[in-house]
Amino acid sequence: MSVADITVILAAMGRWEPNAQGRLEQAAMELFSERGYEQTTVVEIAERAGLTERTFFRHYSDKREVLFGGSTHFRENFVGTLAAAPASLTALEAVTAAVEAAGAALDEFRGREFARTRQRVIVANPELRERELIKLADVTAGMAEALRARGVEEPEASMTAELGMAAFRVAFERWLAAAEERELPDLITEALASVAATVRPGG
Amino acid sequence: MSVADITVILAAMGRWEPNAQGRLEQAAMELFSERGYEQTTVVEIAERAGLTERTFFRHYSDKREVLFGGSTHFRENFVGTLAAAPASLTALEAVTAAVEAAGAALDEFRGREFARTRQRVIVANPELRERELIKLADVTAGMAEALRARGVEEPEASMTAELGMAAFRVAFERWLAAAEERELPDLITEALASVAATVRPGG
Repeated sequence: MSVADITVILAAMGRWEPNAQGRLEQAAMELFSERGYEQTTVVEIAERAGLTERTFFRHYSDKREVLFGGSTHFRENFVGTLAAAPASLTALEAVTAAVEAAGAALDEFRGREFARTRQRVIVANPELRERELIKLADVTAGMAEALRARGVEEPEASMTAELGMAAFRVAFERWLAAAEERELPDLITEALASVAATVRPGG
Repeated sequence: MSVADITVILAAMGRWEPNAQGRLEQAAMELFSERGYEQTTVVEIAERAGLTERTFFRHYSDKREVLFGGSTHFRENFVGTLAAAPASLTALEAVTAAVEAAGAALDEFRGREFARTRQRVIVANPELRERELIKLADVTAGMAEALRARGVEEPEASMTAELGMAAFRVAFERWLAAAEERELPDLITEALASVAATVRPGG
């Protein structure tokens, strides 16, 4: 019996779902875009992906999780990188390293087209927009805490964390714009540099 | 017939409600604190204020509006001040003026104790917390737009607006802390100064 044979048998048994998560994600994005987030059911997502509802629930607790399933990684990219930054870096240098790392990870993770579709879905739904804002606020609070753990005092810890997240958000929005071709990490670097310019006396 | 007589008659007719809005606000805050936002009804708020439900709806469209009724003024303090700032100011100076003006207005408007109670109610309820985050995000977008209207380019316009709102939020949170005695505008100034410190090379 070949591997292909085993695959066919397992697929028939509903136990072998190569890249099930990716297929569910793709199907969900298509449906959210076509008919709207609220009008899409888990059953329809599973059907479009050629999988069962049960398989959906092995990967996600509900349809919202398809959009926010990466939140833990997202947070870890910021907060983990910041916590691991060499002690010799200043607060702003450490935050810059963390935000640039998070931007690079996001760029690689699903790429710009996925992020564009996801953003369109989120912006169209107040509940999702709010969920996204809370996610970003929580990451900001995590960065401020990591900075305080490095010995940075308030309000500098909070302000530097806010500054980093602001650079991320501003760069992220530009990255998603139709005409934008530059990569996310470059846009983050540019956003952070503009703060230095604006803060310089007479800037 | 004296003014006092007229007041009594109008009150009996349910048409004269001295400081109805303030009384409804006070009653709502008490009830939200005592039994929670979700467990409080409009009827109960009106009753506690010694007013009718109809009077409530002359002032607010629903109980959430008691907490967010000042949003238009809040936004105007930021965006209006920024739009009216002298053209000679840099982007950061104009944003600083706007955020300090908004802080001073908030300090005077209801004062710290009111803000503390309101914040406790908001933090305890995800829907309200999300509404608050959206309010702040909208004001930030308004400030960025006002800066672009002044000829500030992107990403500097967005980053300077984000910076101003971050200073406001960080200062606001500290202002509400139990042990904090300094005034909001002073805390805003300190937060903005800490950014200049962190951005300075070697800072």
